[in-house]
Amino acid sequence: MRDSFEISSSSGSYPVVSGAGLLAELVAERPDAVFLVDARLEFRLPAAVAKRVVIEANEDNKSLERIPDIILKLREHGINRASHLVAVGGGVIQDIATFAASIYMRGIPWTYMPTTLLSMADSCVGGKSSINVIGYKNLVGNFYPPVQVLIDLDFVASLDSEQIVGGLYEAVKICYAMGKQEFLAYLSEASRPPISAFGAQRVVMRALRAKKWFIETDEFDQKERLLLNFGHTFGHALESGTGFGVSHGIAVGIGMLVAIEYARCRNWLSPIGTDVTNQLRDYVRSLLGEGANRVARCPPKINLARVNEKFNNDKKHRSDSYRMVVPWQDGALELVSEPRGESVRRDIAHAFESVFNEVGWSFLSD
Amino acid sequence: MRDSFEISSSSGSYPVVSGAGLLAELVAERPDAVFLVDARLEFRLPAAVAKRVVIEANEDNKSLERIPDIILKLREHGINRASHLVAVGGGVIQDIATFAASIYMRGIPWTYMPTTLLSMADSCVGGKSSINVIGYKNLVGNFYPPVQVLIDLDFVASLDSEQIVGGLYEAVKICYAMGKQEFLAYLSEASRPPISAFGAQRVVMRALRAKKWFIETDEFDQKERLLLNFGHTFGHALESGTGFGVSHGIAVGIGMLVAIEYARCRNWLSPIGTDVTNQLRDYVRSLLGEGANRVARCPPKINLARVNEKFNNDKKHRSDSYRMVVPWQDGALELVSEPRGESVRRDIAHAFESVFNEVGWSFLSD
Repeated sequence: MRDSFEISSSSGSYPVVSGAGLLAELVAERPDAVFLVDARLEFRLPAAVAKRVVIEANEDNKSLERIPDIILKLREHGINRASHLVAVGGGVIQDIATFAASIYMRGIPWTYMPTTLLSMADSCVGGKSSINVIGYKNLVGNFYPPVQVLIDLDFVASLDSEQIVGGLYEAVKICYAMGKQEFLAYLSEASRPPISAFGAQRVVMRALRAKKWFIETDEFDQKERLLLNFGHTFGHALESGTGFGVSHGIAVGIGMLVAIEYARCRNWLSPIGTDVTNQLRDYVRSLLGEGANRVARCPPKINLARVNEKFNNDKKHRSDSYRMVVPWQDGALELVSEPRGESVRRDIAHAFESVFNEVGWSFLSD
Repeated sequence: MRDSFEISSSSGSYPVVSGAGLLAELVAERPDAVFLVDARLEFRLPAAVAKRVVIEANEDNKSLERIPDIILKLREHGINRASHLVAVGGGVIQDIATFAASIYMRGIPWTYMPTTLLSMADSCVGGKSSINVIGYKNLVGNFYPPVQVLIDLDFVASLDSEQIVGGLYEAVKICYAMGKQEFLAYLSEASRPPISAFGAQRVVMRALRAKKWFIETDEFDQKERLLLNFGHTFGHALESGTGFGVSHGIAVGIGMLVAIEYARCRNWLSPIGTDVTNQLRDYVRSLLGEGANRVARCPPKINLARVNEKFNNDKKHRSDSYRMVVPWQDGALELVSEPRGESVRRDIAHAFESVFNEVGWSFLSD
């Protein structure tokens, strides 16, 4: 069943459509488009697609140093300002496509087809890109929304349970950020893997409609939209502190647990806030061991000093304070600034350590 | 004397201020800003400027492959989203600064101080960048206006006559594009080198106020603003066909002569149009030999086949037609499409050749 809505942005509005068979329809409609596709998914492209740029979706290729190669390939395909680009893949492909489409001849129109649950439920709307530069993760990027987002549910069947859990973590994060009512509505559907195409559509469209509010209210990440960083500052530290041994979605789930733990230690939560954050914690923890996912089978070993160091260096902090999104009082999210200093650093390290213990992950010394 | 006005853009409005002593004022106001400066002008920066990124202003450095180095230097200076960037230089520095400021942490605010007459009179407003990619000139770019443009007239005294003529060519191009009345008003001031700071201010602010109309009407180069490409498609072919032996401003002047010649050959001009284009032609030709400029002292030798080939490959054309801005009927500019084919190619080659003969430039065989 098709379901769709519109997102408004400063560069015009664009539709978000979900349903089955959208890739085949798009190819029939735009046989001349250039398809920028994740190498693992190239086999899904119909033979009719003549112009292809095939990319290994990894952090190395999501870098400013590699963008010239992509641009050259577009040039070799004869792409001009009247051409259309279609990106087929998860977040890494989306980042590369957003950036390349935005700068090629100062911007060409593009369509995004997210293929992971995480990109379907979260990143596909909002128009952001994040690009690495010589070892600095996500140091550059921009805003350049596609002209349409097409969520082809046929991709759902190919996802493993770790990818599904990661997507659900981002989805529940958005609904939690939206408020208690939206969060409880989300929980009442109790999404967990394995997930059907129809189940994915429900959770994806619920999360995206909630995210629509944030990005239309604050397109350029000045205020409200920053609350969607819930779980991300702690999560990024875990991702990069383990050399990306923990995937983004899983790291966001763990990051939300750390944020809750930090708020709990600081006595910021009322009894109501404790209750609602407990529900979120239980949901996140219950998914972590779900299915045959990699972190359940083979839990990462954590170098706590390194994770704390990565947290310390996050670009979202200020020179004199840490900035983090945490549940507050009755559980609503707040962006708080905590002065950089020994006691705050100790509490942060303690929150990380408690959560790693809680989920049964062991520690490495340096 | 200070003179200023505002430009509206989709990302907010920004002031354009001209006057003397603006650099010193800015340094006093923003001692913590990072200054991205043309190596030839670094000596103009007060010692108080601690954060500097010094760049040789050349085509190699204006490339996507070199942008990571600039980004790293910003990172090493500890630049974050709350920081301010100031760019001091001509068009190349502007291109690099626009691009780097737009992508660094998804965009930081910046101030532009143009230092050549060409960047003062034309490129400093409009927010465009043009960046080379592995040998393709200006293949990528974007739109990211500064928060203010400060035209410090103290830089005018350091300009040589070739730079002044190049700036005047862009200035007269804008005024001509605006219409006959604006063009005649421009001519009545009869700007020519040498030029005083006050004379530069008059011509610069006249041209920028005219350009304001184009960029506010058509910020993203869809229609009206394309008329400002007058002289540019022919001019770019001359620049790149001579391996950049002819500077941009001079090439635009010659490019306008070629466009006029092409329109004349095709009988597109009425008697009124012939008269007004003759006035433009006389002004452009009279400046060409002015002062001690390089093209007057040492005229380039032209490889006509190469110039025609570069024209043929310009990215602004379509696959089945050439697109060029030419004077039409009573002399107003039009963007015309001419079918790619032998007779059009011959007429274009003829227009180039006539103009090169007219200005006394000789030819090279391949």
